[in-house]
Formats: sequence, C-alpha cells, structure tokens
Amino acid sequence: MYNFEFRNPVKIIFGDGKIASIANEIPIGSRILLTYGGGSIFKNGIYNQVVKALSGHTFFEFGGIEPNPRYHTLLKAVALIKKENIDFLLAVGGGSVVDGTKFISAAVNFNGDSWDICAKGAVIKSAIPFGIVLTLSATGTEMNSFSVISNDSTNEKLAFGSPLVYPKFSVLDPNVLKSLPKTQLSNGVIDAFVHVLEQYLTFPNQAEIQDRFAEAVLLTLIEYGFDYVLKDFDYNTASNTMWAATMALNGQLALGVPSDWATHKIGHELTALYGLDHAQSLAVVLPGMMEVMRTEKHEKLLRYAKNIWNLSEEHDEITIDQAIVKTEEFFQSLETKTHLSDYNIPESGIEIIIEKLKKQGKIQFGEQNALDENRLRTLLKMRY
Amino acid sequence: MYNFEFRNPVKIIFGDGKIASIANEIPIGSRILLTYGGGSIFKNGIYNQVVKALSGHTFFEFGGIEPNPRYHTLLKAVALIKKENIDFLLAVGGGSVVDGTKFISAAVNFNGDSWDICAKGAVIKSAIPFGIVLTLSATGTEMNSFSVISNDSTNEKLAFGSPLVYPKFSVLDPNVLKSLPKTQLSNGVIDAFVHVLEQYLTFPNQAEIQDRFAEAVLLTLIEYGFDYVLKDFDYNTASNTMWAATMALNGQLALGVPSDWATHKIGHELTALYGLDHAQSLAVVLPGMMEVMRTEKHEKLLRYAKNIWNLSEEHDEITIDQAIVKTEEFFQSLETKTHLSDYNIPESGIEIIIEKLKKQGKIQFGEQNALDENRLRTLLKMRY
Repeated sequence: MYNFEFRNPVKIIFGDGKIASIANEIPIGSRILLTYGGGSIFKNGIYNQVVKALSGHTFFEFGGIEPNPRYHTLLKAVALIKKENIDFLLAVGGGSVVDGTKFISAAVNFNGDSWDICAKGAVIKSAIPFGIVLTLSATGTEMNSFSVISNDSTNEKLAFGSPLVYPKFSVLDPNVLKSLPKTQLSNGVIDAFVHVLEQYLTFPNQAEIQDRFAEAVLLTLIEYGFDYVLKDFDYNTASNTMWAATMALNGQLALGVPSDWATHKIGHELTALYGLDHAQSLAVVLPGMMEVMRTEKHEKLLRYAKNIWNLSEEHDEITIDQAIVKTEEFFQSLETKTHLSDYNIPESGIEIIIEKLKKQGKIQFGEQNALDENRLRTLLKMRY
Repeated sequence: MYNFEFRNPVKIIFGDGKIASIANEIPIGSRILLTYGGGSIFKNGIYNQVVKALSGHTFFEFGGIEPNPRYHTLLKAVALIKKENIDFLLAVGGGSVVDGTKFISAAVNFNGDSWDICAKGAVIKSAIPFGIVLTLSATGTEMNSFSVISNDSTNEKLAFGSPLVYPKFSVLDPNVLKSLPKTQLSNGVIDAFVHVLEQYLTFPNQAEIQDRFAEAVLLTLIEYGFDYVLKDFDYNTASNTMWAATMALNGQLALGVPSDWATHKIGHELTALYGLDHAQSLAVVLPGMMEVMRTEKHEKLLRYAKNIWNLSEEHDEITIDQAIVKTEEFFQSLETKTHLSDYNIPESGIEIIIEKLKKQGKIQFGEQNALDENRLRTLLKMRY
C-alpha cells in the first residue's frame, strides 16, 4: 500500500424528507445563489421543497447549467455573484450542476483567466462555500473535491480539483430519483461502476480494505442496478444505489492504490466531439480498455472476474474474456449501448479522436502509462 | 436504511515515515502538550521521532495516562494546561492515551464537575484542538469522536462523544507496530473485529454498502490477523491491519443501520471489576451474545456465517453453531482466552457483574433491547 493522506469533511444528510433540513446548514444572513440546470426541478417538486426550506433566507437564482457544464455559461453566474454580493451557493441538481457550481465557487475570487483553473491546473486560493441538494445520483461529486468543465470555444472537457471545493453539505434524499428518465438512471449506475473500476482494476498493491470496499460498491450496483433502472421506483433500491454512487468516488477507494482514469480521458473526448452522455462514453470504452490492457491488468482482472462475476475457468484468459463479456452485458442490460457505431459515429471518427488526444500531449495513459497511440487505435476499432 | 447524517473531518496521514509531517499540521506558535502513557515511546524511538518533528515548537509533556485512562489522572493534565496556557494537544499513544486526550480536550473549558461529561452526558461547548500519533492499532479512536474513561472512585467505565473531539489529524505509520507485545497486537485485532460486529450483527436493514463494507473489514482482519499477531513484523500485514482497525469504527459502518453495543457494555464491567484488557472482555462476551441472541440476530448470523466463514449447512441453527465456534476459535488462534474462568474470575463474580449493571438502570441491552437480566445471566454462565 502506498502512503496516503485523506480528509473528506463533507457533511452528508441522507434520507427521506431531508431537503427540509438545508436551512439549518446555511449561515444565517447569507446571500444565497440557487444554481440549477434545465428546469426539471420545477416539474418534480424539488424546487418548491428547496424554496420552502429557504424561507426567510435571501436568495437569487441561476438556472440553465447544461449537461457537461459550459465554461461560458458559468462565467455568467460568476458575474451575478459579484453584482449581488452573494456569499453562499446552493446547487440543486445532478453532477453537471454540482460540477458547474464548484467551478463558479472557485472562479469568483480567481485573478486572471479562470479557464486556467482547468487548462493549466492554476491553484485557487479561496472559494465561496456551497451546499448541494442532489437530484441525480451518478458522479459522486456530492462528496468529493473534483469537477469537470467543458469549454465550447476550445472544444475541451477538463477536470480540476481542490480541497477548497468540498461541499459544506450534501442532501441525498432518494425520493428525488423517482421522476428521472430511464436513461439518466442507467447513466448513473454505469458512471458509478466505472468510477470504481478506474480505482480498482489496475494492479494489486496489497490494499485489501480498498479492494474489498471497491468490490462492495460494484456488487451493490449489480444487485440493485437493474431494478433501479427498469422497475418502478422503490425507496430501498434507490437508497442503496444512491449511497453506492457516492461511495464510488469519495476518495476512499483510491487511498494507497494506483488509479487508471484512461477510460475517462478517452470518454471525455467522445462527449466533447460527438455528444455522447458521459456514462455512454464509458460504456463504450471500458470493455476495450479491459481487452487491450489485459496483460498489465491480468491479476486484477482475474480477481474482478472471481469476486464480482463468480468466474473461475481453467484458463485465465478465458476467465478474463468472460468477465469482459459480463461487464458489457451488464451495461446493455441497463439499456445502454456499448459501441461507437451505435451512436452514429463515423468510422473516420476514430482518427479524429486520436488526433484530439494527441494534441493534449503524448498518449501514455493508465496506471502504468501503458496505453499508447497504437493500443488506443486498437481499442477504438474494437469498440466500433 | 434509516435516515442518517455523517461528517468525519479527521485528516488521516498514513504510511512509512509520516510522523515527521506532524509539524506541518500544528499551527505555528502553538503551545503544545504532548500526552502519552507508560513510557514505551521512549524505548521504541517514537518519542524521539516526535520531538524531532516538533523542533521549533514550544511543547510540554504529560505522561502516565493508564490503560483504561483514569479520570483523576486526566484532571492533572487539565490543571497543567490551564497553568501553562496550552492550546494544542498531541496524543502519542494507543486508544487509552487518545481517549484520555479527548477527555482532557473537552474538560479544560467545561464548567462544573467534568465527570458529568461521561456520567450525565453533559454537552461540551468547546474543546482544545488535538492531533494524534497512533502507536497501537485497535480502538479506531484515531478517526472518531468517541472516548471511554474510567473513574476509580465510582468504579465506572463510561463513554462520551462530541463532534468537537474529532482529532484534527491522525498519523498512522504502520512501523510503530513493530515493537508491540503479542498481547497488544491480539487485543487490537479482536477489538476491531468486535467493533464491526456491534454495527453489523443486528438485523437486516437494507443497507448493502454498510453490510459489505463491514464484511470487508472482518475478512481483512481474518486474512491478516494471525500473521500480524504471531509472525515477525511485516509492513504490508501491519498496514492492512492498521487501516482495517481504523475503518472498523470511523462511523461509516453504522450509517442507517441498527447498532448493538451490548457486548461492550458487559465487557466494560469485566474490565472495571476484574481488570481484563478491553479486547479480552469482548472475546469472552461475544460468543455468548451470539448464542443468547440467536433468535433476534438469526438472519444476520446466517449472513455472517456464509459471507465470513463460508458456512451454509442444511439446518440454519447448525450453521449458526458453527459460526459461533469459528468466531471463538479465531480469538483463541490469536492466543486470547475466551472464558471467565481463564481470567481467574470466581463463579460468584457473575452475580456481582449483573448487580453492577443493574445499578446503571434496567438491563435492556442491544439493538432490540432484548438482552434482559435473565439472558445476561445465561450468557455469563455459558461463558464461565
């Protein structure tokens, strides 16, 4: 196990009816900016619950944060905050609204071009405090200090992180998942599943708690995922899936172990170039990643096959083949398509994706820098 | 799953050589009180590492905190803090030194009789900040907000908790475990193991992540426990056991599920009356708890039998019998004795223990208040 440091100060407020408690979490006298997305919170009653909870507080609103939140949209929120002397943000939404709010929080006091926070890893020195009412379970952003932002003018989708953008609190009421379309539920399960694999499916590093916790999250997502996506809303199913998605990326699974994140790097380009949902991009790339990295990931692939899919054939490579098939079938069972061609990407797109990634620097991805341009090409052709 | 709230802000600094980093964690200009126990830190070199790391800081020392830290000893530290205007504590020790330091931290600014913090659950309004250099892995106190204190004059051993006594940081360097006697290592594994069971072995509450995380900790303790206690020091064995013990009681396993803690309540009296080590008392009581609560804990006992010991007989009760045997054998394999008579407690002690517990209120322990005086008597006779 590698040395590590860990501190996650997010207050989680989990359960039925918990949105009402946000008023106690925001300092009295705060000037609050409510941030949200396309307006689904007006239809499903969450907006009303939030406004009722904020009764007596002064608040402003900023809606329209897109899926894959756009830098130029977020700058408008930054301007509003400066104009209205806002000092607390309340994100009401899913991963995109929360990630957008993290960026807003970091950008308000940033001197210079705030895109540098993502593009150049510029260090932020302060951030406006914010809380979260989560409306969609997927990215784990509600309990971590990371964010991914898209920039239309540069066609980039880039991440940043800082301990300053840990949410002060996150309200997780599983009832919010009741009205979500199937695609969003499926995206959530797959996103969480791949988050775990990015931290688990590397090479053994004698970190048994971390590996077993990772397996716990994977098995929970498999156990509840299908019912969560395809059956009528059930509180227990929703609460278990919701907590699994949070645990998938709160930092704990990555302690002392190598991390991969190559699937995410490639997936981000599929989203930036061809508009795939984040989870769709992961469902396309991941089976190929397992395939082309089967030598480097051999031991962990075998452990994954055995502990997650109960597979243990006489020949290791057959066991691994079957684990890859099981993984892809799991995504498909949640009605998510797993090939580039399913999303009407032309075959010529493969070279465009590779060129785009090359522009960011030498292609040398994964926990051992072993995914190079050639293997990436093999992977993408395989996933066409 | 029940509703829950969770916030654990402790900074964990884990790994080889990490004691040197404490200087960065303590505010410059602090007046520090180093707290420790019987002086083993002078023999194993930890004291020297700490003093070197504190070079340039002003610090005082308070040694002699006993195993099962004594209220009247801790009051002397409180007096020293007031006299010397100390504003930061650094606990260098195991569970007892840390628990004692938590009490000191809470008692300094407490108005009135500070034993009320334990005896009457008096709420503390402030606490002196403190950090930890852990020298013995067992109780999990390094990442939670609880503490257990003993009072000689009342013959009581009582717990208190407050978010104000979360450590600011905890340094966990597995190398500190190198020089520990076998008994202390064994105590550590058993203490952590029973902590998990107090939160897991109740009744199913549709909390899959929590149950699987609990199983992850149990399996890790079983996998590494024997080598940890009985073989020569190995860094990987030590680091996995150490992290398992921390994860056993950092609050996460208890989220949204019922908790028991009856084994601890009874065990504390064995320690207070007959001087058993904490873990020894748990090793004596726990197998009896499983036995007398087998109806209430039926489903969870079966899950425990299957997922931890791979047991699944045709008849449930036989499966449970075997799981209880396996548990006791595990404690014995770590060279810890599991019967009252092994510790030279007279048979007449059984009624003394019961009377002592009755004085604290009606005997109605466990997650369903189902352990009454009669069952307690059965349990203790069974464990004689």
